[in-house]
Amino acid sequence: MNAVTDRPAAKAYASGLEARLAVRRGEHRGPTAGVAPGYVQGNLAILPKALADDFFRFCHYNPKPCPLLAASEPGDPRLPALGEDLDIRTDIPLYRIWRNGELVDEVGDLHAAWRDDLVAFLIGCSFSFEEALLDDGIRLRHIEQGTNVPMWRTNITTQPAGPFRGPMVVSMRPLQPADAIRAVQITSRFPSVHGAPVHIGKPESIGIADLTRPDYGDAVEVRDDELPVFWACGVTPQSVIAAVRPEYSITHAPGHMLVTDLRNSRLSVL
Amino acid sequence: MNAVTDRPAAKAYASGLEARLAVRRGEHRGPTAGVAPGYVQGNLAILPKALADDFFRFCHYNPKPCPLLAASEPGDPRLPALGEDLDIRTDIPLYRIWRNGELVDEVGDLHAAWRDDLVAFLIGCSFSFEEALLDDGIRLRHIEQGTNVPMWRTNITTQPAGPFRGPMVVSMRPLQPADAIRAVQITSRFPSVHGAPVHIGKPESIGIADLTRPDYGDAVEVRDDELPVFWACGVTPQSVIAAVRPEYSITHAPGHMLVTDLRNSRLSVL
Repeated sequence: MNAVTDRPAAKAYASGLEARLAVRRGEHRGPTAGVAPGYVQGNLAILPKALADDFFRFCHYNPKPCPLLAASEPGDPRLPALGEDLDIRTDIPLYRIWRNGELVDEVGDLHAAWRDDLVAFLIGCSFSFEEALLDDGIRLRHIEQGTNVPMWRTNITTQPAGPFRGPMVVSMRPLQPADAIRAVQITSRFPSVHGAPVHIGKPESIGIADLTRPDYGDAVEVRDDELPVFWACGVTPQSVIAAVRPEYSITHAPGHMLVTDLRNSRLSVL
Repeated sequence: MNAVTDRPAAKAYASGLEARLAVRRGEHRGPTAGVAPGYVQGNLAILPKALADDFFRFCHYNPKPCPLLAASEPGDPRLPALGEDLDIRTDIPLYRIWRNGELVDEVGDLHAAWRDDLVAFLIGCSFSFEEALLDDGIRLRHIEQGTNVPMWRTNITTQPAGPFRGPMVVSMRPLQPADAIRAVQITSRFPSVHGAPVHIGKPESIGIADLTRPDYGDAVEVRDDELPVFWACGVTPQSVIAAVRPEYSITHAPGHMLVTDLRNSRLSVL
Protein backbone atom coordinates (compact mmCIF):
# COMPACT_ATOMS: atom_id res chain seq x y z
CA MET A 1 0.00 0.00 0.00
CA ASN A 2 1.12 3.53 -0.35
CA ALA A 3 1.12 6.98 1.02
CA VAL A 4 -2.33 8.02 -0.03
CA THR A 5 -4.03 5.46 2.19
CA ASP A 6 -6.27 6.91 4.85
CA ARG A 7 -6.09 10.47 3.69
CA PRO A 8 -8.93 11.83 5.89
CA ALA A 9 -7.46 14.73 7.77
CA ALA A 10 -5.88 14.27 11.19
CA LYS A 11 -5.01 17.06 13.58
CA ALA A 12 -2.64 19.46 11.83
CA TYR A 13 0.66 20.55 13.39
CA ALA A 14 2.53 23.71 12.46
CA SER A 15 5.65 21.94 11.21
CA GLY A 16 7.08 18.57 10.37
CA LEU A 17 9.08 18.64 13.61
CA GLU A 18 6.01 19.31 15.74
CA ALA A 19 4.13 16.47 14.07
CA ARG A 20 7.13 14.14 14.56
CA LEU A 21 7.45 15.05 18.24
CA ALA A 22 3.72 14.40 18.73
CA VAL A 23 4.20 10.99 17.17
CA ARG A 24 7.25 10.31 19.35
CA ARG A 25 5.36 11.25 22.51
CA GLY A 26 2.51 8.94 21.51
CA GLU A 27 0.09 11.81 21.07
CA HIS A 28 -0.45 11.06 17.40
CA ARG A 29 -1.02 7.41 16.52
CA GLY A 30 -3.01 7.46 13.28
CA PRO A 31 -2.31 8.08 9.61
CA THR A 32 -0.24 11.13 8.78
CA ALA A 33 -2.15 12.60 5.84
CA GLY A 34 -2.67 16.27 6.54
CA VAL A 35 -0.81 16.36 9.87
CA ALA A 36 1.71 18.98 8.70
CA PRO A 37 0.51 20.74 5.57
CA GLY A 38 3.34 21.86 3.31
CA TYR A 39 5.86 19.39 4.73
CA VAL A 40 7.30 16.42 2.87
CA GLN A 41 6.29 12.94 3.99
CA GLY A 42 8.28 9.85 3.09
CA ASN A 43 7.79 6.12 2.64
CA LEU A 44 10.00 3.98 4.89
CA ALA A 45 11.89 0.83 3.95
CA ILE A 46 14.46 -0.62 6.36
CA LEU A 47 16.78 -3.39 5.15
CA PRO A 48 19.84 -5.17 6.54
CA LYS A 49 23.16 -3.85 5.24
CA ALA A 50 23.61 -7.12 3.30
CA LEU A 51 20.78 -6.03 1.00
CA ALA A 52 21.01 -2.28 1.40
CA ASP A 53 23.71 -1.60 -1.17
CA ASP A 54 21.79 -3.37 -3.91
CA PHE A 55 18.60 -1.56 -2.92
CA PHE A 56 20.42 1.75 -2.94
CA ARG A 57 21.53 1.03 -6.51
CA PHE A 58 17.98 -0.03 -7.41
CA CYS A 59 16.64 3.34 -6.25
CA HIS A 60 19.32 5.19 -8.16
CA TYR A 61 18.55 3.27 -11.36
CA ASN A 62 14.81 3.76 -11.00
CA PRO A 63 14.32 7.29 -9.72
CA LYS A 64 10.76 7.73 -10.98
CA PRO A 65 9.18 4.88 -8.93
CA CYS A 66 11.88 5.00 -6.19
CA PRO A 67 12.86 8.62 -5.55
CA LEU A 68 15.28 8.31 -2.65
CA LEU A 69 15.02 11.29 -0.30
CA ALA A 70 17.61 9.98 2.17
CA ALA A 71 19.27 6.83 3.49
CA SER A 72 20.76 6.29 6.93
CA GLU A 73 24.16 4.95 7.88
CA PRO A 74 23.98 1.30 9.03
CA GLY A 75 22.66 1.13 12.57
CA ASP A 76 22.20 4.88 12.80
CA PRO A 77 18.55 5.85 13.37
CA ARG A 78 19.09 9.48 12.40
CA LEU A 79 18.38 11.05 9.02
CA PRO A 80 19.85 14.55 9.32
CA ALA A 81 19.04 15.37 5.70
CA LEU A 82 15.35 15.15 6.56
CA GLY A 83 15.24 16.72 10.01
CA GLU A 84 17.49 17.80 12.86
CA ASP A 85 15.67 16.01 15.67
CA LEU A 86 14.64 12.86 13.86
CA ASP A 87 14.79 9.28 15.09
CA ILE A 88 13.49 6.74 12.62
CA ARG A 89 12.82 4.29 15.50
CA THR A 90 10.21 6.51 17.16
CA ASP A 91 8.92 9.10 14.72
CA ILE A 92 6.48 7.05 12.65
CA PRO A 93 3.09 6.21 14.20
CA LEU A 94 2.96 2.57 13.14
CA TYR A 95 5.56 0.16 11.73
CA ARG A 96 5.35 -3.27 10.17
CA ILE A 97 7.97 -5.94 10.85
CA TRP A 98 8.59 -8.55 8.17
CA ARG A 99 10.55 -11.84 8.33
CA ASN A 100 11.25 -13.71 5.11
CA GLY A 101 8.58 -11.64 3.44
CA GLU A 102 5.88 -12.41 6.00
CA LEU A 103 4.28 -9.73 8.14
CA VAL A 104 5.05 -10.73 11.73
CA ASP A 105 4.20 -7.67 13.80
CA GLU A 106 2.88 -4.12 13.87
CA VAL A 107 4.54 -1.89 16.45
CA GLY A 108 4.46 1.72 17.60
CA ASP A 109 8.23 2.06 17.90
CA LEU A 110 11.36 0.19 16.84
CA HIS A 111 13.41 0.13 20.04
CA ALA A 112 13.01 -3.65 20.37
CA ALA A 113 13.20 -4.26 16.63
CA TRP A 114 16.29 -2.20 15.83
CA ARG A 115 19.60 -3.82 14.81
CA ASP A 116 23.06 -2.41 14.25
CA ASP A 117 23.08 -3.50 10.62
CA LEU A 118 19.83 -1.83 9.56
CA VAL A 119 19.71 0.86 6.90
CA ALA A 120 16.65 3.11 6.65
CA PHE A 121 15.52 4.34 3.23
CA LEU A 122 13.07 7.22 2.88
CA ILE A 123 11.38 7.42 -0.47
CA GLY A 124 9.40 10.37 -1.78
CA CYS A 125 5.64 10.05 -1.99
CA SER A 126 2.83 11.43 -4.11
CA PHE A 127 1.46 13.53 -1.23
CA SER A 128 3.99 16.20 -2.22
CA PHE A 129 3.05 16.49 -5.87
CA GLU A 130 -0.65 16.12 -5.09
CA GLU A 131 -0.39 19.11 -2.78
CA ALA A 132 1.16 21.10 -5.63
CA LEU A 133 -1.65 20.04 -7.98
CA LEU A 134 -4.36 20.88 -5.45
CA ASP A 135 -2.73 24.25 -4.74
CA ASP A 136 -2.96 24.94 -8.48
CA GLY A 137 -6.70 24.27 -8.46
CA ILE A 138 -6.56 20.82 -10.06
CA ARG A 139 -9.15 18.47 -8.59
CA LEU A 140 -8.15 14.91 -7.72
CA ARG A 141 -11.06 12.53 -7.65
CA HIS A 142 -9.69 9.95 -5.22
CA ILE A 143 -9.09 12.71 -2.68
CA GLU A 144 -12.55 14.21 -3.18
CA GLN A 145 -14.04 10.75 -2.72
CA GLY A 146 -11.83 9.91 0.26
CA THR A 147 -10.55 6.70 -1.35
CA ASN A 148 -7.11 5.32 -2.06
CA VAL A 149 -5.58 6.19 -5.42
CA PRO A 150 -5.94 3.26 -7.86
CA MET A 151 -2.70 1.49 -8.75
CA TRP A 152 -1.64 -1.17 -11.27
CA ARG A 153 1.35 -3.33 -12.04
CA THR A 154 2.46 -2.47 -15.58
CA ASN A 155 4.51 -4.00 -18.37
CA ILE A 156 7.13 -1.30 -17.76
CA THR A 157 10.20 -3.00 -16.30
CA THR A 158 12.51 -1.54 -13.71
CA GLN A 159 16.28 -1.75 -14.08
CA PRO A 160 17.41 -4.57 -11.77
CA ALA A 161 20.11 -4.25 -9.10
CA GLY A 162 21.19 -7.44 -7.39
CA PRO A 163 18.05 -9.32 -6.36
CA PHE A 164 15.79 -6.31 -6.75
CA ARG A 165 13.72 -6.41 -9.92
CA GLY A 166 10.10 -6.35 -11.04
CA PRO A 167 7.44 -4.34 -12.82
CA MET A 168 6.80 -0.67 -12.25
CA VAL A 169 3.62 0.03 -10.32
CA VAL A 170 1.74 3.18 -11.34
CA SER A 171 -1.00 5.28 -9.78
CA MET A 172 -3.73 6.85 -11.91
CA ARG A 173 -5.56 10.16 -11.66
CA PRO A 174 -8.27 11.05 -14.22
CA LEU A 175 -7.88 14.59 -15.53
CA GLN A 176 -9.39 16.70 -18.25
CA PRO A 177 -6.82 17.24 -21.03
CA ALA A 178 -5.94 20.83 -20.13
CA ASP A 179 -5.40 19.77 -16.51
CA ALA A 180 -3.33 16.80 -17.69
CA ILE A 181 -1.03 19.18 -19.56
CA ARG A 182 -0.79 21.45 -16.51
CA ALA A 183 -0.13 18.41 -14.30
CA VAL A 184 2.79 17.40 -16.53
CA GLN A 185 4.24 20.88 -16.08
CA ILE A 186 3.77 20.93 -12.32
CA THR A 187 4.93 17.42 -11.50
CA SER A 188 7.95 17.75 -13.82
CA ARG A 189 9.26 20.24 -11.26
CA PHE A 190 9.19 17.55 -8.54
CA PRO A 191 11.53 14.75 -9.66
CA SER A 192 12.14 13.66 -6.07
CA VAL A 193 8.48 12.74 -5.59
CA HIS A 194 7.93 10.72 -8.79
CA GLY A 195 8.15 13.66 -11.21
CA ALA A 196 6.28 13.81 -14.51
CA PRO A 197 3.72 11.17 -15.44
CA VAL A 198 5.06 8.05 -17.12
CA HIS A 199 1.98 7.57 -19.26
CA ILE A 200 -1.19 9.28 -20.44
CA GLY A 201 -4.28 7.95 -22.10
CA LYS A 202 -3.51 4.47 -23.45
CA PRO A 203 -3.57 2.10 -20.45
CA GLU A 204 -3.40 -1.00 -22.68
CA SER A 205 -0.01 0.23 -23.95
CA ILE A 206 1.46 -0.24 -20.47
CA GLY A 207 -0.25 -3.54 -19.77
CA ILE A 208 -3.34 -2.30 -17.94
CA ALA A 209 -6.37 -4.24 -19.19
CA ASP A 210 -9.16 -2.82 -17.04
CA LEU A 211 -9.29 0.66 -15.51
CA THR A 212 -12.16 -0.42 -13.28
CA ARG A 213 -10.08 -3.10 -11.56
CA PRO A 214 -6.91 -1.71 -9.97
CA ASP A 215 -4.31 -4.09 -8.53
CA TYR A 216 -4.08 -1.88 -5.42
CA GLY A 217 -6.26 0.89 -4.03
CA ASP A 218 -9.75 1.79 -5.15
CA ALA A 219 -11.20 2.33 -8.61
CA VAL A 220 -12.25 5.83 -9.64
CA GLU A 221 -14.39 6.80 -12.58
CA VAL A 222 -12.69 8.07 -15.74
CA ARG A 223 -15.24 10.24 -17.52
CA ASP A 224 -15.59 10.57 -21.27
CA ASP A 225 -13.94 13.98 -21.32
CA GLU A 226 -10.98 12.85 -19.18
CA LEU A 227 -7.68 11.10 -19.76
CA PRO A 228 -6.24 8.60 -17.30
CA VAL A 229 -2.84 10.01 -16.25
CA PHE A 230 -0.32 7.58 -14.75
CA TRP A 231 2.56 8.33 -12.40
CA ALA A 232 5.28 5.97 -11.19
CA CYS A 233 4.28 4.83 -7.70
CA GLY A 234 6.07 4.16 -4.43
CA VAL A 235 4.40 0.78 -4.24
CA THR A 236 7.03 -0.29 -6.78
CA PRO A 237 9.90 -0.53 -4.24
CA GLN A 238 7.59 -2.14 -1.71
CA SER A 239 6.56 -4.90 -4.12
CA VAL A 240 10.14 -5.33 -5.31
CA ILE A 241 11.36 -5.76 -1.72
CA ALA A 242 8.51 -8.14 -0.92
CA ALA A 243 9.50 -10.34 -3.85
CA VAL A 244 13.03 -10.71 -2.43
CA ARG A 245 11.65 -11.93 0.92
CA PRO A 246 14.43 -10.41 3.03
CA GLU A 247 15.22 -12.32 6.21
CA TYR A 248 14.31 -9.13 8.08
CA SER A 249 12.80 -5.84 6.99
CA ILE A 250 10.67 -3.02 8.37
CA THR A 251 8.26 -0.65 6.64
CA HIS A 252 5.77 1.99 7.71
CA ALA A 253 2.18 0.79 8.03
CA PRO A 254 0.07 2.05 5.12
CA GLY A 255 -0.69 5.75 5.48
CA HIS A 256 1.59 6.13 8.51
CA MET A 257 4.48 8.08 7.04
CA LEU A 258 7.58 9.89 8.24
CA VAL A 259 6.92 13.63 8.38
CA THR A 260 10.09 15.57 7.60
CA ASP A 261 11.36 19.12 8.06
CA LEU A 262 11.53 19.62 4.28
CA ARG A 263 8.92 21.84 2.70
CA ASN A 264 7.15 20.41 -0.34
CA SER A 265 7.83 23.62 -2.25
CA ARG A 266 11.57 23.15 -1.72
CA LEU A 267 11.43 19.90 -3.68
CA SER A 268 10.62 21.93 -6.78
CA VAL A 269 13.68 22.07 -9.03
CA LEU A 270 12.45 25.23 -10.71
CA MET B 1 -1.40 28.83 -44.19
CA ASN B 2 1.42 28.52 -41.76
CA ALA B 3 5.06 28.14 -41.25
CA VAL B 4 5.33 24.43 -41.76
CA THR B 5 4.30 24.66 -45.40
CA ASP B 6 6.88 23.47 -47.88
CA ARG B 7 9.32 22.18 -45.34
CA PRO B 8 11.59 20.29 -47.83
CA ALA B 9 15.10 21.54 -47.22
CA ALA B 10 16.50 24.49 -49.11
CA LYS B 11 20.14 25.53 -49.22
CA ALA B 12 21.30 26.12 -45.66
CA TYR B 13 23.06 29.32 -44.62
CA ALA B 14 25.30 29.67 -41.58
CA SER B 15 23.16 32.28 -39.84
CA GLY B 16 19.89 34.08 -39.98
CA LEU B 17 21.64 37.18 -41.29
CA GLU B 18 23.30 35.28 -44.15
CA ALA B 19 19.97 33.74 -45.14
CA ARG B 20 18.29 37.15 -44.99
CA LEU B 21 20.98 38.78 -47.14
CA ALA B 22 20.63 35.97 -49.70
CA VAL B 23 16.91 36.67 -49.82
CA ARG B 24 17.52 40.38 -50.15
CA ARG B 25 19.95 39.86 -53.04
CA GLY B 26 17.41 37.64 -54.81
CA GLU B 27 19.61 34.56 -54.45
CA HIS B 28 17.04 32.73 -52.33
CA ARG B 29 13.47 32.86 -53.61
CA GLY B 30 11.81 29.73 -52.21
CA PRO B 31 10.41 28.61 -48.88
CA THR B 32 12.61 29.19 -45.87
CA ALA B 33 12.31 25.86 -44.03
CA GLY B 34 15.81 24.69 -43.19
CA VAL B 35 17.63 27.71 -44.65
CA ALA B 36 19.29 28.65 -41.32
CA PRO B 37 19.15 25.76 -38.86
CA GLY B 38 18.95 26.91 -35.27
CA TYR B 39 17.60 30.38 -36.10
CA VAL B 40 14.12 31.61 -35.31
CA GLN B 41 11.72 32.21 -38.18
CA GLY B 42 8.65 34.37 -37.87
CA ASN B 43 5.23 34.81 -39.44
CA LEU B 44 4.61 38.26 -40.89
CA ALA B 45 1.45 40.34 -40.64
CA ILE B 46 1.49 44.00 -41.72
CA LEU B 47 -1.46 46.22 -40.88
CA PRO B 48 -2.23 49.94 -41.11
CA LYS B 49 -1.73 51.86 -37.87
CA ALA B 50 -5.53 52.31 -37.64
CA LEU B 51 -5.84 48.58 -36.92
CA ALA B 52 -2.42 47.92 -35.44
CA ASP B 53 -3.16 48.93 -31.86
CA ASP B 54 -6.11 46.58 -31.61
CA PHE B 55 -4.10 43.77 -33.20
CA PHE B 56 -1.26 44.40 -30.77
CA ARG B 57 -3.72 44.00 -27.91
CA PHE B 58 -5.15 40.86 -29.53
CA CYS B 59 -1.69 39.28 -29.59
CA HIS B 60 -1.08 40.23 -25.98
CA TYR B 61 -4.40 38.73 -24.89
CA ASN B 62 -3.83 35.53 -26.87
CA PRO B 63 -0.15 34.68 -26.50
CA LYS B 64 -0.49 30.97 -27.23
CA PRO B 65 -1.88 31.31 -30.79
CA CYS B 66 -0.32 34.77 -31.36
CA PRO B 67 3.13 34.89 -29.72
CA LEU B 68 4.41 38.31 -30.73
CA LEU B 69 8.18 38.28 -31.28
CA ALA B 70 8.38 41.94 -32.33
CA ALA B 71 6.40 44.81 -33.85
CA SER B 72 7.76 47.74 -35.85
CA GLU B 73 7.16 51.43 -35.40
CA PRO B 74 4.64 52.79 -37.95
CA GLY B 75 6.32 53.23 -41.32
CA ASP B 76 9.64 51.88 -40.07
CA PRO B 77 10.70 48.72 -41.93
CA ARG B 78 13.33 47.78 -39.33
CA LEU B 79 12.88 45.26 -36.50
CA PRO B 80 16.04 45.69 -34.43
CA ALA B 81 14.85 43.21 -31.80
CA LEU B 82 15.07 40.47 -34.44
CA GLY B 83 18.22 41.44 -36.34
CA GLU B 84 20.63 44.33 -36.78
CA ASP B 85 20.56 44.47 -40.57
CA LEU B 86 16.91 43.65 -41.19
CA ASP B 87 14.49 45.30 -43.62
CA ILE B 88 11.02 43.84 -43.57
CA ARG B 89 10.44 45.18 -47.11
CA THR B 90 13.14 43.05 -48.71
CA ASP B 91 14.08 40.16 -46.44
CA ILE B 92 11.21 37.74 -47.05
CA PRO B 93 11.25 35.75 -50.31
CA LEU B 94 7.60 36.18 -51.20
CA TYR B 95 4.84 38.46 -49.90
CA ARG B 96 1.10 38.55 -50.36
CA ILE B 97 -0.78 41.85 -50.71
CA TRP B 98 -4.40 41.93 -49.58
CA ARG B 99 -7.10 44.58 -50.14
CA ASN B 100 -10.37 44.31 -48.23
CA GLY B 101 -9.51 40.71 -47.44
CA GLU B 102 -8.87 39.72 -51.06
CA LEU B 103 -5.48 38.54 -52.28
CA VAL B 104 -4.46 41.02 -54.97
CA ASP B 105 -0.77 40.34 -55.58
CA GLU B 106 2.29 38.27 -54.74
CA VAL B 107 5.55 40.20 -54.81
CA GLY B 108 9.23 39.62 -54.08
CA ASP B 109 9.73 42.90 -52.23
CA LEU B 110 7.61 45.63 -50.68
CA HIS B 111 9.25 48.79 -52.03
CA ALA B 112 6.19 49.64 -54.12
CA ALA B 113 3.73 48.34 -51.52
CA TRP B 114 5.11 50.10 -48.45
CA ARG B 115 3.22 52.94 -46.72
CA ASP B 116 4.19 55.27 -43.92
CA ASP B 117 1.36 54.02 -41.70
CA LEU B 118 2.20 50.31 -41.85
CA VAL B 119 3.11 48.31 -38.77
CA ALA B 120 4.86 44.95 -39.15
CA PHE B 121 4.11 42.17 -36.68
CA LEU B 122 6.36 39.14 -36.39
CA ILE B 123 4.74 36.16 -34.73
CA GLY B 124 6.57 33.08 -33.49
CA CYS B 125 6.13 29.86 -35.42
CA SER B 126 6.15 26.17 -34.72
CA PHE B 127 9.44 25.66 -36.60
CA SER B 128 11.23 26.63 -33.39
CA PHE B 129 9.56 24.16 -31.07
CA GLU B 130 9.59 21.44 -33.73
CA GLU B 131 13.37 21.84 -33.96
CA ALA B 132 13.59 21.37 -30.20
CA LEU B 133 11.41 18.23 -30.40
CA LEU B 134 13.42 16.78 -33.28
CA ASP B 135 16.69 17.56 -31.47
CA ASP B 136 15.31 15.52 -28.57
CA GLY B 137 14.71 12.52 -30.80
CA ILE B 138 10.94 12.91 -31.09
CA ARG B 139 9.68 11.99 -34.55
CA LEU B 140 7.11 14.23 -36.23
CA ARG B 141 5.08 12.43 -38.85
CA HIS B 142 4.18 15.38 -41.07
CA ILE B 143 7.85 16.22 -41.38
CA GLU B 144 8.83 12.64 -42.16
CA GLN B 145 6.12 12.53 -44.80
CA GLY B 146 6.97 15.96 -46.20
CA THR B 147 3.43 17.23 -45.77
CA ASN B 148 1.90 20.26 -44.05
CA VAL B 149 0.91 19.85 -40.44
CA PRO B 150 -2.87 19.30 -40.12
CA MET B 151 -4.80 22.18 -38.56
CA TRP B 152 -8.36 22.72 -37.35
CA ARG B 153 -10.57 25.54 -36.18
CA THR B 154 -11.70 24.71 -32.65
CA ASN B 155 -14.44 25.68 -30.21
CA ILE B 156 -11.77 27.42 -28.10
CA THR B 157 -12.43 31.16 -28.33
CA THR B 158 -9.79 33.86 -28.40
CA GLN B 159 -10.10 36.99 -26.28
CA PRO B 160 -11.31 39.74 -28.63
CA ALA B 161 -9.60 43.11 -29.07
CA GLY B 162 -11.40 45.70 -31.17
CA PRO B 163 -12.52 43.98 -34.37
CA PHE B 164 -10.18 41.02 -33.93
CA ARG B 165 -11.94 37.90 -32.71
CA GLY B 166 -12.53 34.30 -33.72
CA PRO B 167 -11.78 30.69 -32.91
CA MET B 168 -8.36 29.37 -32.03
CA VAL B 169 -6.80 27.29 -34.78
CA VAL B 170 -4.65 24.38 -33.62
CA SER B 171 -2.10 22.12 -35.26
CA MET B 172 -1.91 18.41 -34.43
CA ARG B 173 1.02 16.05 -34.11
CA PRO B 174 0.41 12.38 -33.25
CA LEU B 175 2.76 11.15 -30.52
CA GLN B 176 3.12 8.06 -28.39
CA PRO B 177 2.15 8.90 -24.78
CA ALA B 178 5.71 9.04 -23.41
CA ASP B 179 6.69 11.38 -26.25
CA ALA B 180 3.57 13.46 -25.62
CA ILE B 181 4.65 13.94 -21.99
CA ARG B 182 8.16 14.86 -23.10
CA ALA B 183 6.74 17.23 -25.72
CA VAL B 184 4.75 19.03 -23.02
CA GLN B 185 7.97 19.50 -21.06
CA ILE B 186 9.97 20.72 -24.04
CA THR B 187 7.43 23.06 -25.57
CA SER B 188 6.52 24.53 -22.16
CA ARG B 189 9.99 26.08 -22.26
CA PHE B 190 9.12 27.97 -25.46
CA PRO B 191 6.17 30.27 -24.68
CA SER B 192 7.14 32.67 -27.49
CA VAL B 193 6.58 29.99 -30.12
CA HIS B 194 3.17 28.68 -28.96
CA GLY B 195 4.41 26.98 -25.78
CA ALA B 196 2.79 23.90 -24.26
CA PRO B 197 0.02 22.04 -26.06
CA VAL B 198 -3.51 23.33 -25.53
CA HIS B 199 -5.06 19.87 -25.75
CA ILE B 200 -4.27 16.17 -25.79
CA GLY B 201 -6.30 13.19 -26.76
CA LYS B 202 -9.97 14.22 -26.92
CA PRO B 203 -10.41 16.16 -30.17
CA GLU B 204 -14.21 16.18 -29.83
CA SER B 205 -13.78 18.18 -26.60
CA ILE B 206 -12.36 21.10 -28.59
CA GLY B 207 -14.82 20.85 -31.45
CA ILE B 208 -12.84 18.66 -33.85
CA ALA B 209 -15.19 16.09 -35.36
CA ASP B 210 -12.89 14.23 -37.76
CA LEU B 211 -9.12 13.81 -37.40
CA THR B 212 -8.89 12.63 -41.00
CA ARG B 213 -10.26 15.92 -42.37
CA PRO B 214 -8.22 18.95 -41.26
CA ASP B 215 -9.46 22.44 -42.02
CA TYR B 216 -5.96 23.38 -43.21
CA GLY B 217 -2.88 21.36 -44.14
CA ASP B 218 -2.75 17.64 -44.74
CA ALA B 219 -4.12 14.74 -42.71
CA VAL B 220 -1.66 12.42 -40.96
CA GLU B 221 -2.40 9.02 -39.51
CA VAL B 222 -2.96 8.75 -35.74
CA ARG B 223 -2.06 5.17 -34.81
CA ASP B 224 -3.74 3.13 -32.11
CA ASP B 225 -0.85 3.60 -29.71
CA GLU B 226 -0.67 7.36 -30.24
CA LEU B 227 -2.42 10.43 -28.87
CA PRO B 228 -3.26 13.44 -31.00
CA VAL B 229 -1.46 16.40 -29.40
CA PHE B 230 -2.73 19.89 -30.26
CA TRP B 231 -0.83 23.17 -30.16
CA ALA B 232 -2.16 26.68 -30.67
CA CYS B 233 -1.32 27.67 -34.24
CA GLY B 234 -0.15 30.80 -36.01
CA VAL B 235 -2.96 30.40 -38.51
CA THR B 236 -5.18 31.85 -35.76
CA PRO B 237 -4.04 35.47 -36.25
CA GLN B 238 -4.11 35.04 -40.01
CA SER B 239 -7.72 33.87 -39.98
CA VAL B 240 -8.67 36.54 -37.45
CA ILE B 241 -7.15 39.27 -39.66
CA ALA B 242 -8.79 37.84 -42.76
CA ALA B 243 -12.20 38.02 -41.06
CA VAL B 244 -11.70 41.77 -40.44
CA ARG B 245 -11.03 42.37 -44.18
CA PRO B 246 -8.60 45.25 -43.61
CA GLU B 247 -8.56 47.80 -46.39
CA TYR B 248 -4.88 46.96 -46.82
CA SER B 249 -2.64 44.27 -45.35
CA ILE B 250 0.45 42.27 -46.19
CA THR B 251 1.55 38.79 -45.12
CA HIS B 252 4.34 36.41 -46.02
CA ALA B 253 3.43 33.79 -48.63
CA PRO B 254 2.94 30.38 -47.02
CA GLY B 255 6.29 28.86 -46.02
CA HIS B 256 8.22 32.01 -46.93
CA MET B 257 9.14 33.32 -43.50
CA LEU B 258 11.34 35.99 -41.99
CA VAL B 259 14.61 34.46 -40.78
CA THR B 260 15.90 36.30 -37.72
CA ASP B 261 19.18 36.60 -35.84
CA LEU B 262 17.64 34.96 -32.75
CA ARG B 263 18.66 31.43 -31.95
CA ASN B 264 15.83 28.99 -31.27
CA SER B 265 17.58 27.85 -28.10
CA ARG B 266 17.50 31.42 -26.76
CA LEU B 267 13.69 31.34 -26.84
CA SER B 268 13.79 28.74 -24.08
CA VAL B 269 12.76 30.33 -20.80
CA LEU B 270 14.58 27.67 -18.78
